[in-house]
Amino acid sequence: MRTGAVPAEVERFLRQQRVARLATANNRGRPHVVPICFAVSGTTLFTVIDRKPKRVGPKALRRVRNIRQNPRVAAVIDVYAEDWSKLGFVLLEGRARIVQRGKAYTIGLNLLRRKYPQYRRMDLQNCPMIVVTIQNVVRWGHSGGQR
Amino acid sequence: MRTGAVPAEVERFLRQQRVARLATANNRGRPHVVPICFAVSGTTLFTVIDRKPKRVGPKALRRVRNIRQNPRVAAVIDVYAEDWSKLGFVLLEGRARIVQRGKAYTIGLNLLRRKYPQYRRMDLQNCPMIVVTIQNVVRWGHSGGQR
Repeated sequence: MRTGAVPAEVERFLRQQRVARLATANNRGRPHVVPICFAVSGTTLFTVIDRKPKRVGPKALRRVRNIRQNPRVAAVIDVYAEDWSKLGFVLLEGRARIVQRGKAYTIGLNLLRRKYPQYRRMDLQNCPMIVVTIQNVVRWGHSGGQR
Repeated sequence: MRTGAVPAEVERFLRQQRVARLATANNRGRPHVVPICFAVSGTTLFTVIDRKPKRVGPKALRRVRNIRQNPRVAAVIDVYAEDWSKLGFVLLEGRARIVQRGKAYTIGLNLLRRKYPQYRRMDLQNCPMIVVTIQNVVRWGHSGGQR
């Protein structure tokens, strides 16, 4: 299934998963990938550059620099089990933008705080939010609704 | 720490982890990311295109097509915990090639079969192996030797 729409059973799967891995690439095609906390609603994925310790300031982070150079991103959310008949993943592809205020920012923050109690105690004022418009969804194996 | 060499404590961490997420990008900078089983030895990461069910044949897989277009790859290996003071990841960056026979192929297969009993029962004849020469290692948080 390849479409921007996220089917209900995939949304359920994504709600249960705590970590995604976000891949970006700079304008010379050098890829980068990091684990992220995330929330998905409709065809949008939200992840905030939070105050977990970072090696550099938020604007110098590779994911942020890459998205400013090249908005195309991919995120994978997967489950691992030693019984390999139970593996599964969802790949989300789309275009990202960085926001620091406005409606999308507020929606994302609310979703993230609902999903992660850790964020409720964290000051996220002025933390950039990566907002991904999902254009393509690929499912493989056990990723909701296929058991 | 940014160097191709993988320190002993990071190697230990990598040996304990069962899944990495491999990011590639095509020659137009479109990123892709999938979970992979992997083994690291010295400055080389190995992952085989195994016979877990795939949507397309091995040569049509996005990761393989991307690497043929653009050998730069990144892999992240991370640990998640609800106590965010215990998060950690290792990012490996390097250049990948695809091999189907030869010394690197045999070494990779032996390492993967030692790490994953599942591979011992699997026919991997003619399954392409992705061999990554690690050029850069980035550590963050709890990723071996920092507890």
